Amino acid sequence: MPHTEQSQPIRQLLAGIKGFRARYYERRPDSMRQLVTEGQHPEILMIGCSDSRVDPALLTQAEPGELFVVRNVANLVPPYQPDGSYHGTSAAIEYAVRVLGVSHVIVLGHAQCGGIQGLIRLRTGQKTDDDFVSPWVSIAGSALDPYINGADGTERSQADAERLQQQPDVVERAAVRTSVDNLMTFPFVRERVEAGTLSLHGWWFDLEDGELWAIDPKTRLFEPV
Amino acid sequence: MPHTEQSQPIRQLLAGIKGFRARYYERRPDSMRQLVTEGQHPEILMIGCSDSRVDPALLTQAEPGELFVVRNVANLVPPYQPDGSYHGTSAAIEYAVRVLGVSHVIVLGHAQCGGIQGLIRLRTGQKTDDDFVSPWVSIAGSALDPYINGADGTERSQADAERLQQQPDVVERAAVRTSVDNLMTFPFVRERVEAGTLSLHGWWFDLEDGELWAIDPKTRLFEPV
Amino acid sequence: MPHTEQSQPIRQLLAGIKGFRARYYERRPDSMRQLVTEGQHPEILMIGCSDSRVDPALLTQAEPGELFVVRNVANLVPPYQPDGSYHGTSAAIEYAVRVLGVSHVIVLGHAQCGGIQGLIRLRTGQKTDDDFVSPWVSIAGSALDPYINGADGTERSQADAERLQQQPDVVERAAVRTSVDNLMTFPFVRERVEAGTLSLHGWWFDLEDGELWAIDPKTRLFEPV
Amino acid sequence: MPHTEQSQPIRQLLAGIKGFRARYYERRPDSMRQLVTEGQHPEILMIGCSDSRVDPALLTQAEPGELFVVRNVANLVPPYQPDGSYHGTSAAIEYAVRVLGVSHVIVLGHAQCGGIQGLIRLRTGQKTDDDFVSPWVSIAGSALDPYINGADGTERSQADAERLQQQPDVVERAAVRTSVDNLMTFPFVRERVEAGTLSLHGWWFDLEDGELWAIDPKTRLFEPV
Repeated sequence: MPHTEQSQPIRQLLAGIKGFRARYYERRPDSMRQLVTEGQHPEILMIGCSDSRVDPALLTQAEPGELFVVRNVANLVPPYQPDGSYHGTSAAIEYAVRVLGVSHVIVLGHAQCGGIQGLIRLRTGQKTDDDFVSPWVSIAGSALDPYINGADGTERSQADAERLQQQPDVVERAAVRTSVDNLMTFPFVRERVEAGTLSLHGWWFDLEDGELWAIDPKTRLFEPV
Repeated sequence: MPHTEQSQPIRQLLAGIKGFRARYYERRPDSMRQLVTEGQHPEILMIGCSDSRVDPALLTQAEPGELFVVRNVANLVPPYQPDGSYHGTSAAIEYAVRVLGVSHVIVLGHAQCGGIQGLIRLRTGQKTDDDFVSPWVSIAGSALDPYINGADGTERSQADAERLQQQPDVVERAAVRTSVDNLMTFPFVRERVEAGTLSLHGWWFDLEDGELWAIDPKTRLFEPV
Repeated sequence: MPHTEQSQPIRQLLAGIKGFRARYYERRPDSMRQLVTEGQHPEILMIGCSDSRVDPALLTQAEPGELFVVRNVANLVPPYQPDGSYHGTSAAIEYAVRVLGVSHVIVLGHAQCGGIQGLIRLRTGQKTDDDFVSPWVSIAGSALDPYINGADGTERSQADAERLQQQPDVVERAAVRTSVDNLMTFPFVRERVEAGTLSLHGWWFDLEDGELWAIDPKTRLFEPV
Repeated sequence: MPHTEQSQPIRQLLAGIKGFRARYYERRPDSMRQLVTEGQHPEILMIGCSDSRVDPALLTQAEPGELFVVRNVANLVPPYQPDGSYHGTSAAIEYAVRVLGVSHVIVLGHAQCGGIQGLIRLRTGQKTDDDFVSPWVSIAGSALDPYINGADGTERSQADAERLQQQPDVVERAAVRTSVDNLMTFPFVRERVEAGTLSLHGWWFDLEDGELWAIDPKTRLFEPV
């Protein structure tokens, strides 16, 4: 496929891959060889958002082989639902925990999450018009219960909506907590957590100032790290 | 949350985030500020595998803000199925195409894909024992049709299995083709592709030698880039 | 020149340059173009050691164009001596200050400096056997005066040598101070410092724990930054 | 020293060092520890220019510990002159070859070299007004002999100047050749080259297109690598 016919963003990605090959295959040939011959052995599953500004590998300065990564809208974990239909996030959790045997699962939320904005609109009774985003983000719907006075009247939900849109970080962090809770509904997760061989972490990255917050396992509250 | 109580892999991730903050918020303060004040405007949606060795941002040397990323087992795109249940990958595609208005969608497959190994076992009649991985990878099941002589007899499927396990890259590339085809079942994708404002790409990264292969839009065959 | 005939370390450097070209000329074409068309405009002259472990660009996460760099053994600045012979470090200082008009000159010392080890041996009367290193490091010879009880007897200088070799960081920092003082012997430096358009900095990097120390302009003592 | 009192370029360097510490001391603690406990063992001495755009470590994607580096104006090596005065570049060559035992010495020139511009002005009889740059770059003066018709008349040298200023890359490469020749005047270099344990390389980096040129050891001509 001739390189020159490509549009600019694609040409730049191809140049990036050329640089990756120079760096990891030629400059430091040992760095990839072991990952190829021995396979991957990551210790960490990170469930992050698709948002282009919060890339798990860039954010944590990871090298190839370190992080097994799921990325979806709003870094959500659905509850355990083994009904034979397509569950991409659940499949990745199962693969990471049962096949790769990771020791840590991290749910990584972040500020300014568009998916959580959608959830706020949805839960405060605003009109939505999409096929998949609203059903998907409704996974974290119950996270808003403490913050919603009721959807029984237009006035009230309007007030809720305004208030929540002014503090979306509260919802973003509540949604991370829900996802961590949902992780515990997977039997193969719960067993290993109870056996002490798997740790669950809830993180929230404040895009505005670069601070990381994490759930304190004792108080279950988010605290700056 | 005291830093020192954390285990080694987590401490290292936290150190990585500290380095990210030093680099992107203090060393080059302009680099994140714009992404925070103006929001994200990625031109590319990349659908990659959760495999720790094939990180889209590392592989393409991307900076924050460049790639909107979905990662799931075997970089699969399910068919359009707007039934109100949880479809994480479809939600991300919808968000990228309809809300962010990306210009390119890239499905990025790779060599040595564990999910595709699972698909080969599944399609050649071997016993599987999982809740989510097998149903999930069956999305690409039809990709194997041309390579399976039939699952009607144990002998035959055994031969198929052996043959396919010796050339998994054929299946990996066929699965990328299936995912690209499935993208076209989404009305909001098809419309924009037909209007010429959205391009679909099928890539396969050969982990063993660092070469990238891409679907030639004319022949629909994979060629080295 | 065929790539394949080269020995391994050279092949790896060439691969690194290939990666640089992919990254800076193709992946981010704007990053070098401006430096090529408009020339360099660094604000900083850094005078560092040749030591492979203390690279100014890596240490400060600099991009091309940011630092004008001199590197010599023990990051020394000789006194102003315009005698028409070859003065490499002085030429670079002159070029940076008079032609490029930098705003800052930083002398960057570091722990475990082999050149300073040589200076300690030299100043404590130990035998040296070299053509250039001893004369060169003697630039900072006076830096040791406060720490040497006298070179008049073997016993005494032996004691000095042992003591100094146990705390070479004292000498390393004193040598940085001498180099900063020597900078002020250059008329074109002194004038701009006195005019307030040029700042001089003395830094010392503790290789062992990664801490940076800097001369406090008021007390002239090194303090952790 | 309070961080906040510093000017912007210095604050950014300090942030870079903070990032370096996070990356090399905390994120990958093994990467520096060995260099601290075992000392440096670089295989390569690189003699590069002080120019901010051609940083040896960035250009070759080196990690700490890989390159012992001299940087001066125009990447020059003076001839062997063991007269007891200050010879910074010669001291570094001596340290690299005799103490560290490097296997390769690379002289790295580049396009758009300000020092070489100065040399062209100097050798074509133009007025210069500096203390150190002109004497220093005169090291490579003989490199211009084949390109200068004579400095005996104003007209002729004017024509030479115009011609050379239009093709400075010829002079830049000739100067690299002179520096490589000068390396052979150091007895400790010559001995090891003749014994086959040390290799000398002359490189020239074309800043404009990112191509590297190298002296072909057989023809002594520069060829693209």
